Amino acid sequence: MFKINPVAIKNFTKFISIRSISGRRLIYEGYGDPSDVVKLENFELPSELKADQVQIKWNAAPVNPADINQLQGVYPVKPKLPAIGGNEGCATVEKVGSSVTSLKPGDLVIPVQSGLGTWTTHSVHDENSLFSLNSNLDKIHASVFQVNPPTAYRMLHDFVSLNKGDTVIQNGANSAVGRFAIQLCRIFGWKSINIIRDRPGADKLKKELEGLGADAVYTEEEFAKKVRDITNVRLALNCVGGKSSFQLCRTLTDQGCMVTYGGMSKQPTQTPTGPLIFKDISLRGFWMSHWYTVTANLDERRRMYDKLAQLFIDGELKPAPYKEYPLEEYKKVLEIGLQAKEKAIFVF
Amino acid sequence: MFKINPVAIKNFTKFISIRSISGRRLIYEGYGDPSDVVKLENFELPSELKADQVQIKWNAAPVNPADINQLQGVYPVKPKLPAIGGNEGCATVEKVGSSVTSLKPGDLVIPVQSGLGTWTTHSVHDENSLFSLNSNLDKIHASVFQVNPPTAYRMLHDFVSLNKGDTVIQNGANSAVGRFAIQLCRIFGWKSINIIRDRPGADKLKKELEGLGADAVYTEEEFAKKVRDITNVRLALNCVGGKSSFQLCRTLTDQGCMVTYGGMSKQPTQTPTGPLIFKDISLRGFWMSHWYTVTANLDERRRMYDKLAQLFIDGELKPAPYKEYPLEEYKKVLEIGLQAKEKAIFVF
Repeated sequence: MFKINPVAIKNFTKFISIRSISGRRLIYEGYGDPSDVVKLENFELPSELKADQVQIKWNAAPVNPADINQLQGVYPVKPKLPAIGGNEGCATVEKVGSSVTSLKPGDLVIPVQSGLGTWTTHSVHDENSLFSLNSNLDKIHASVFQVNPPTAYRMLHDFVSLNKGDTVIQNGANSAVGRFAIQLCRIFGWKSINIIRDRPGADKLKKELEGLGADAVYTEEEFAKKVRDITNVRLALNCVGGKSSFQLCRTLTDQGCMVTYGGMSKQPTQTPTGPLIFKDISLRGFWMSHWYTVTANLDERRRMYDKLAQLFIDGELKPAPYKEYPLEEYKKVLEIGLQAKEKAIFVF
Repeated sequence: MFKINPVAIKNFTKFISIRSISGRRLIYEGYGDPSDVVKLENFELPSELKADQVQIKWNAAPVNPADINQLQGVYPVKPKLPAIGGNEGCATVEKVGSSVTSLKPGDLVIPVQSGLGTWTTHSVHDENSLFSLNSNLDKIHASVFQVNPPTAYRMLHDFVSLNKGDTVIQNGANSAVGRFAIQLCRIFGWKSINIIRDRPGADKLKKELEGLGADAVYTEEEFAKKVRDITNVRLALNCVGGKSSFQLCRTLTDQGCMVTYGGMSKQPTQTPTGPLIFKDISLRGFWMSHWYTVTANLDERRRMYDKLAQLFIDGELKPAPYKEYPLEEYKKVLEIGLQAKEKAIFVF
């Protein structure tokens, strides 16, 4: 039989409680080809939290085009290097510091702003860097909650006041944002006309988008023949630019608006001059990350999130197709991201 | 000696007072080549006015590009045919009907809306079709008062709130609107950067525009080299479209606005996608004729006219170069209008 030394026990317990957790994260120190500049590294989490800090365990984090552009150094926001990749994702709170009141262990959270670095198993942040969500949300749904559904939601709400039965048109209709726009139009009672690129398998894609609620889906070639007949559109969503944006503008009615949120064709956005002058149409741009930086939007953000979360939970909103990957397969995932052909989500 | 018959005198006086005036006017019955479709005709004015009518004698009426487009049938507003040409001009009130209170003989007036038909020596209108101006205005200045100076004024005031020292950029800087924009920027304390087409005699034109108050004048070729250095522009005025509009947009700062009021290049308006999204710039159009149709603008119209009239009277504002022609030389004038190389004003 051996004697237990009470002091040793106390020290051992202290050792247990302050032992640091090992994590893995994707980090980069310079810009360039994504799979070259990104490295997977192990790291130790700090053993103790400051009073206002929160330690989280990430559940899932997608790879978005903006993440790839950021690694390439061509995105307008450049993080301080070295930086952890990824701007979106959902995490579960593990521990909170002594003064934290808005979050507790078990809460589901997403970043308040872009730039937090989400491609990591664990991280520690200030309390006010994290936004809590309805904890009934599916974790994969929550991980793609910050960028695409709110982008569609805001573009449909903030530029033109749409009434039931009004028509919205969009190109890039099969993008993640496009698919949310189709679903939100269905939910809010607006008609959606949807343009996809000419491609093999267009019929299958059309059926898929119609299944989400699209009122009409045209390939670009089909749309070029139809465009003269469509004259009643209140709002156009443009993520392509070039000739496609020109065609969208032609369908706008008086005081219609085209909102640009991407430039996939890498061509300038084009507008016919006549409608701009004689129909008083306007062209605007939208950038979700910027909207999040405006403090005045905070209440509206909460209202929108509550609404979107309920729609996900009720099965009214479904994410775009995606594939899950472990962090270790990051080289493959970043190659996929470069081609922008498939949505990849890191699942931890 | 002969006897005067009092009845004959009474009848003769009546005959004098109701005798109709002969006028001349430029009229068209169909669309096509302007100098083919327009005819000069004599006409008789009605001998008596209705209670709410006003008879006016036109002093001067310019030939604007919109007038030419209207004759060609390519303008969005098509008058009921046969129609009298011209949409702008100034007239002097000759007689008023018994219930007219807002106007009196001798008043200087311009049309409330486009479409009145101004290429005529005389005409009769409802009281509320005419807007009275400060009668100290020079008649030629008043005849070009309705379209170009207010177009510049409104574009400088209605889209962006400019502070002293802010920068405005424009292409087509030597157009009539462009020249008023330069002068109004000088008067209100805003800097103007002005782009003109590459042309022989550019140096002379530059000096002329600098004389009006332009802070900088570049040819398109010179501007292409400069554009990267200019990043602080709040407002761009675009009457060219195509590559020129693309270059203007590149100079806009955050939340800057480009207002399009013409499309001289006949190319779509082009916008770089990045600034649209990441700088929240906006593209709008402006159409003076439409602004005049909005009843809510009436008070502001009076305020603006009072301001502009005083600037003309004080010699602060000068019209673009023009040449005076009698109505009889209309074929020559319409040819000139087609070429858009010289501003012609009919003087009656």
